[in-house]
Amino acid sequence: MTTVDSAEHETPAAEVDRCLDAAATAAPEWGQWAPRPRAEALSAVADALDAATADLVAAAVTETGLPEARLTGEVKRTTVQLRMFADLLRDGSCLRIVIDRSDPGYALGARPDLRRWLVPLGPALVFAASNFPFAFSVAGGDTASALAAGCPVLLKAHPGHPATSRLTADLVRSALLGAGAPEGTFDLITGRDAGVRALRDPRVAAAAFTGSVAGGRALFDIAASRPSPIPFFGELGSINPAIVTPEAARERGEQIAEGFVGSFTLGAGQFCTKPGVLLLPRGTGLPERVAELADGVPPARMLTTGIARRYHERLGELANVAGVKVLTSGREHADPSGIPAVSPALFHAGPVQNLHEHRDVLLDENFGPSAVIAEYEVDDALPGLLAAVAGSLTVTVQTSNRPDGEERARLAALVEVAARCSGRVVFNEWPTGVAVTPAQHHGGPYPATTAVSHTSVGTAAIERFLRPVTYQNAPDALLPLALRDANPLGLPRIVNEPGDSGRWR
Amino acid sequence: MTTVDSAEHETPAAEVDRCLDAAATAAPEWGQWAPRPRAEALSAVADALDAATADLVAAAVTETGLPEARLTGEVKRTTVQLRMFADLLRDGSCLRIVIDRSDPGYALGARPDLRRWLVPLGPALVFAASNFPFAFSVAGGDTASALAAGCPVLLKAHPGHPATSRLTADLVRSALLGAGAPEGTFDLITGRDAGVRALRDPRVAAAAFTGSVAGGRALFDIAASRPSPIPFFGELGSINPAIVTPEAARERGEQIAEGFVGSFTLGAGQFCTKPGVLLLPRGTGLPERVAELADGVPPARMLTTGIARRYHERLGELANVAGVKVLTSGREHADPSGIPAVSPALFHAGPVQNLHEHRDVLLDENFGPSAVIAEYEVDDALPGLLAAVAGSLTVTVQTSNRPDGEERARLAALVEVAARCSGRVVFNEWPTGVAVTPAQHHGGPYPATTAVSHTSVGTAAIERFLRPVTYQNAPDALLPLALRDANPLGLPRIVNEPGDSGRWR
Repeated sequence: MTTVDSAEHETPAAEVDRCLDAAATAAPEWGQWAPRPRAEALSAVADALDAATADLVAAAVTETGLPEARLTGEVKRTTVQLRMFADLLRDGSCLRIVIDRSDPGYALGARPDLRRWLVPLGPALVFAASNFPFAFSVAGGDTASALAAGCPVLLKAHPGHPATSRLTADLVRSALLGAGAPEGTFDLITGRDAGVRALRDPRVAAAAFTGSVAGGRALFDIAASRPSPIPFFGELGSINPAIVTPEAARERGEQIAEGFVGSFTLGAGQFCTKPGVLLLPRGTGLPERVAELADGVPPARMLTTGIARRYHERLGELANVAGVKVLTSGREHADPSGIPAVSPALFHAGPVQNLHEHRDVLLDENFGPSAVIAEYEVDDALPGLLAAVAGSLTVTVQTSNRPDGEERARLAALVEVAARCSGRVVFNEWPTGVAVTPAQHHGGPYPATTAVSHTSVGTAAIERFLRPVTYQNAPDALLPLALRDANPLGLPRIVNEPGDSGRWR
Repeated sequence: MTTVDSAEHETPAAEVDRCLDAAATAAPEWGQWAPRPRAEALSAVADALDAATADLVAAAVTETGLPEARLTGEVKRTTVQLRMFADLLRDGSCLRIVIDRSDPGYALGARPDLRRWLVPLGPALVFAASNFPFAFSVAGGDTASALAAGCPVLLKAHPGHPATSRLTADLVRSALLGAGAPEGTFDLITGRDAGVRALRDPRVAAAAFTGSVAGGRALFDIAASRPSPIPFFGELGSINPAIVTPEAARERGEQIAEGFVGSFTLGAGQFCTKPGVLLLPRGTGLPERVAELADGVPPARMLTTGIARRYHERLGELANVAGVKVLTSGREHADPSGIPAVSPALFHAGPVQNLHEHRDVLLDENFGPSAVIAEYEVDDALPGLLAAVAGSLTVTVQTSNRPDGEERARLAALVEVAARCSGRVVFNEWPTGVAVTPAQHHGGPYPATTAVSHTSVGTAAIERFLRPVTYQNAPDALLPLALRDANPLGLPRIVNEPGDSGRWR
């Protein structure tokens, strides 16, 4: 979703090496902390950030130009997120402990005593995002979930907000050390070369990334081509199609137009869940209304010069596609920061068939406040069209208030395909604004992510940094405390007694 | 773990294409079967295989030369495995349904209604293994778990047992079709080129493989370099170190020598969990006793000519390492099948430091009945040595009957490192013989597997073929049955009511 600016300060190779060494040394110790003290350490980080909210927000306002209220809310989201992972650890079921007691009468012959739980992968390299200077940056969801899993984190800062990153990192580091975590549990590096160096290093066991398809794919390829490949949890690009039924357009067209404009221009369109394309039934007049509303949205500063430049180039590409009409051209305005501010841009691609024909340009994410509208006929095969769209984080469906009869019958196939090509299907709301809850899924087929089975938002994000280990026939005193007979840590465990066919979770 | 012979019949490209088309067409339908009918279909496959056990075993005896009793047991393991996945589906908790009801008072602002569950990835390509002609072949664990997840399976047969594969495939296909599964839910292809063609095809959504490091890495690289990369669950090579404490050697040296020889020569050493290296305290005399016992093991036919050839080459490499002494050379015998039979081979690498120095050869898996012994001094840093070994499926530790005092203190660090570099730590038993149970983990860091967070044995293997999808604010009638308010399928679900901080599983 972002492009990296060139002026990034590079952490020297020797310092990257020192950080990696410290992380590798910290990994066994931090990884063996019991869930509850680890939860306390995460809470201490949250407390430290909460206490410094004013300073953090001030730094981020200067660097990103985002509104103070939005940034204050984002610090809160970041600390709530850290506390949710702390609660997850206190609950302990995320360790998924399963004990099969030995069973001489097991179906396939005597079964030994087997005890399985999840352990941390080891040092995690996290590439921070541009667009959430707190919630997906230094102390964001990737860091929180990796630390909760027991992985030390080496954080590669985003060049869009270096001072905010450094300030946050200092708070995270001292809170962790203050809670007794070993040196090396958290460090910050900067610079593209430093990030690549760390990604290639055998001491790094996993990586997480939020950014552009081009940048993310290059890093994924590095992770996959290492002598020992590692998991790479990349969140790259997503077009997030939104589809409006004829019934919805008739019933609440104005509300939909307002909602769409609000969503695709939120944060200057620099959200990974921005709805980039809107499919409307033909002849509603809504495209013009959407354009009118978009014209009324004040210009907003882009996050970085690089993002603004790439956004501008993409506007030109979109406008040059055959059959595309520019509804609103998206003016650029000077900003005291030197980084351009932009007004929303809106394109009309004509019939959905044209969208499909030129999908390489029209259905490729444009990071910024632009969107493409296309119109369909009621007998167009929308599910087929949707299936041809590349993987997305979300698909949004706008229905009438009580979808039934013909509308519901048509929607059934569409919703099924929406679930096949995305990770979240949103009804009658908009995809921006991702709730941090247990049932959340923020992921999807490539290029939305490089790891389709995982989420980067919500408590399930911890799964990315864990792996199973089973102990067979172990003397009790040699087991980790969590797996001993007496269960001294009081963790939730599934225990399959002899004769049980076996429960799994 | 295997090498592919060259005489493999190639499924023509047009037929591979037809199979992929059928799988892609079947995927939405098979993927939407409710868990219980899907369980019935798996049980029907198990029934069909059970009923044909005699024919299946006869075919496999001819093709593999494995003993009839072993193969009969393996058919049973295969069908028990299918029925375990059927039971898992009947239980339904593997779908991990979590419902967060909308909550206007949620910590970060109003939370919408979110419902998360797991859905199948889509068509899975399964490369069968050489060494388990049933349990890890056509209807083996990969196939059973992918089908249970709701993924159609395209099975690339192993050339070591083509007739057995075809016979099994016909039974699987007709049992599935008989249970009402769509055409394309299961098909078989043969040949290396056919497998690679399928792996590159955009209709394939995931792949599983059991085989050699060289072959598996080549396929992993193809999967990772696709325009849309897919998950590749490869189980490649594993050295499976076994370590004997001085106390254990004193207390039950003879039993350990017998157990080790039994384990590394089982199935002519062609198990992925074969203990390939044994670390003994110096001066026990056990190396000679192990060699004596190994000499008494009758020759056994290798699985394929290719495997036998590679095994023979590797014996030469091992014998040529500086400081290595051949304790038993591993004679080759003619077999009526034309594929060589071999006696066990045993090497003494001297002190563990020599093992470490030449680890590229000595600690590289040799698929067949060979093993390497090394001796350590009590003050050698065994944990450090173990940490330098590449990722393994297992580490085995032989202790005294009641490890305490000094032995236990020394073991604590060793066991911790064992869990870091493997997926299963075995005590006072041997790693061959992998129980199929909920707490089992058959996986490990690269090169043991290419996906460290997953297992290929045990019910958790289903997780490889599932991904989450969340529905936000969906009208009840547009939700999958499993997620509707009335829970018409009666599935286990976690429901977080307003005010709940949120449970996750």
